[in-house]
Amino acid sequence: MLLSLKLSYKTTTGQDYQAGLPPKDLVLINNGTTKEEDEDLVDPWNVQTSNAKGVDYDKLIVRFGSSKIDTDLINRIERATGQKPHHFLRRGIFFSHRDMDQVLDAYENKKPFYLYTGRGPSSQAMHVGHLIPFMFTKWLQEVFDVPLVIQLTDDEKYLWKDMTVEKAYEYARENAKDIIACGFDVNKTFIFSDLDYLGTSAGFYKNIVKVQKHVTFNQVKGIFGFTDSDCIGKISFPAIQAAPSFSSSFPQIFNGKENIQCLIPCAIDQDPYFRMTRDVAPRIGQPKPALLHSVFFPALQGAQTKMSASDPNSSIFLTDTPKQIKTKINKHAFSGGRDTIEEHRKYGGNCEVDVSFMYLTFFLEDDDRLEQLKQAYTSGELLTGELKKVLIETMQPLVAAHQERRKQVTDEIVKQFMTPRKLAFEF
Amino acid sequence: MLLSLKLSYKTTTGQDYQAGLPPKDLVLINNGTTKEEDEDLVDPWNVQTSNAKGVDYDKLIVRFGSSKIDTDLINRIERATGQKPHHFLRRGIFFSHRDMDQVLDAYENKKPFYLYTGRGPSSQAMHVGHLIPFMFTKWLQEVFDVPLVIQLTDDEKYLWKDMTVEKAYEYARENAKDIIACGFDVNKTFIFSDLDYLGTSAGFYKNIVKVQKHVTFNQVKGIFGFTDSDCIGKISFPAIQAAPSFSSSFPQIFNGKENIQCLIPCAIDQDPYFRMTRDVAPRIGQPKPALLHSVFFPALQGAQTKMSASDPNSSIFLTDTPKQIKTKINKHAFSGGRDTIEEHRKYGGNCEVDVSFMYLTFFLEDDDRLEQLKQAYTSGELLTGELKKVLIETMQPLVAAHQERRKQVTDEIVKQFMTPRKLAFEF
Repeated sequence: MLLSLKLSYKTTTGQDYQAGLPPKDLVLINNGTTKEEDEDLVDPWNVQTSNAKGVDYDKLIVRFGSSKIDTDLINRIERATGQKPHHFLRRGIFFSHRDMDQVLDAYENKKPFYLYTGRGPSSQAMHVGHLIPFMFTKWLQEVFDVPLVIQLTDDEKYLWKDMTVEKAYEYARENAKDIIACGFDVNKTFIFSDLDYLGTSAGFYKNIVKVQKHVTFNQVKGIFGFTDSDCIGKISFPAIQAAPSFSSSFPQIFNGKENIQCLIPCAIDQDPYFRMTRDVAPRIGQPKPALLHSVFFPALQGAQTKMSASDPNSSIFLTDTPKQIKTKINKHAFSGGRDTIEEHRKYGGNCEVDVSFMYLTFFLEDDDRLEQLKQAYTSGELLTGELKKVLIETMQPLVAAHQERRKQVTDEIVKQFMTPRKLAFEF
Repeated sequence: MLLSLKLSYKTTTGQDYQAGLPPKDLVLINNGTTKEEDEDLVDPWNVQTSNAKGVDYDKLIVRFGSSKIDTDLINRIERATGQKPHHFLRRGIFFSHRDMDQVLDAYENKKPFYLYTGRGPSSQAMHVGHLIPFMFTKWLQEVFDVPLVIQLTDDEKYLWKDMTVEKAYEYARENAKDIIACGFDVNKTFIFSDLDYLGTSAGFYKNIVKVQKHVTFNQVKGIFGFTDSDCIGKISFPAIQAAPSFSSSFPQIFNGKENIQCLIPCAIDQDPYFRMTRDVAPRIGQPKPALLHSVFFPALQGAQTKMSASDPNSSIFLTDTPKQIKTKINKHAFSGGRDTIEEHRKYGGNCEVDVSFMYLTFFLEDDDRLEQLKQAYTSGELLTGELKKVLIETMQPLVAAHQERRKQVTDEIVKQFMTPRKLAFEF
């Protein structure tokens, strides 16, 4: 049996077994994604927690080795930009970062940086949760006045889903319309589909192949959990999400300059890609991208899971009518209220698990109003139905306004955003 | 110790050890590259045989599952083109094929096809052996009058060698000059560097990602022997060599048409790439490429190994002077002659292992003269020194003429060949 084990070991690793020694070159660079029994599961494809309050983000910061966005950092952003910090910062929705101090150092020394964010266009339908990184990125772009690149990973969706290349590209263009409808400035923003841009950029593929040379299968296995039966497209894809972190991927925008600092606002489930990128960057002579991480947007049914674009009742979609919004919230939004009005009046509701309240922290900008609602709900003064009504009245105009702006986004405007070109900055 | 082994097993495979069972999803799809003890080793990076006559090609045909180029097929090519078959066909230098009958069927029915060949630009220096596929491809292009695409896999060389992206691209351009000097028609030929073309083609990356979706790590492990410690660039590279087999990788040439038959002349060590390609093709709705396989060009020291661009004495380089050619052949060309003149006169020389005679089969076009030399050498009438003199007098003008043509290849001409464009064909 020992012989058979040794043989299996050799078949698997290609090396003779030596007691006590791990296989050579099989060091798993795990970067903290290993999960203990009672921990939340967070990677680019899965977010799972057993806690109704959602993922324990403080623990995640420790596990991922990132840094908390604390009051000092928020104050520094306010000083540097002269602007009141976005409510996503004030309320801990963007809660974690990597090297944001360095970005601010550079900014204060008049050194340029740029923003990079993205989206995997898995379907035509986007929900309000998908807006979070874009709303925040738009604010960052405005207060820092920097270029922004937005990657649509249609190739990723083609590789992962049962979908044609053509359909993935179509979704990318449709999603671009929703992103544009967030109000980005065409003179400062470049949106690209991988399937499209890879074939039009002199710099993108060169950076991809550089990353691909410096990451082994063992590493992506450790970071992303890929297996031997995964297709080679999935295995090499992380390099494609990594490459826009390097300014030379955009020669038209940065005039071929290689060393411009990148800042990536994204949900924390995307961090594994950028841990890998930051590991590779110095080895290919590039600066490490900085990151700002957001929490997950909860499903209507509760904060245990990330919202899903495939379940229409798990989310408020950007295409929903006012009536659908009202019905969904009233019917599906998990309540932190009590079972009877009497009990609710007596003991109060629980904002920490109430999805309507959570949604309001994302979308109700007025801090005082939010605090009033929290007090009233917690004390039992405000009933669940009344809280839901506030949310409905917040979401209906927000979604309607989005739909109105999206209608204005013509194919010509999409083409403008998606054309590789010089932006309104000098490099 | 058993526990420790089981733990290592689990770390490596991600699965619990079960006695006697190989890890799941680790089925090696080998496609015939598994080598018995006494067999020749042939893959894109290694050619090894213990036989002085060189690799046993009949056995290779059986192992790879290709078909022998027999007299019937050669006669059919002659009938179809109305041209005397190239001496590489007459002499078994191109000895194996896949689906060449289908290409001829299509040709006789006036259906279009195109040629695809390539080179990995591992250094600036090319040797005469590197010319073989290009000389033959040029002949094919002339007799069939079809478009030709030539891939320079500078990305592959960057991934495999200790080389910068810039250096790999420089070698690609230098190698392109030698290829152009073979006399290709600029109106019918497109030469491309992967590093360059991937960023300028609307179709190439789409085909690459399609291939990448349909090939697993298990498969490339079986076909190419990749391991878990190989970089993800190597692992996904086979898709990049596969994609030019599909006409939609060249929208400018084929007007976006997807279903045009491809014929690939190459040395047989490249077959693993195209076995993989042929396996994927029907699953992505593309025709399988047909192939014509050549034998390997022997090193001066003997036919046991493939020529190496890194050992200057193993080959005649395209940059060698007449004097260098003379010295190399006299000093290094392995002789099939006898130890003394007396013995040679009595028993005769052995053409089957004599490298000078082998080289003449490649480069001396005159069949009658070659037959005379063979008779005279075998009978002992012709001495090794005299045979070497014939080879020297064959190679000196051939290399000098190449150098003369290469001098005429300006950067402007290279640019013309390497610009994606419509060729002199209608699709």
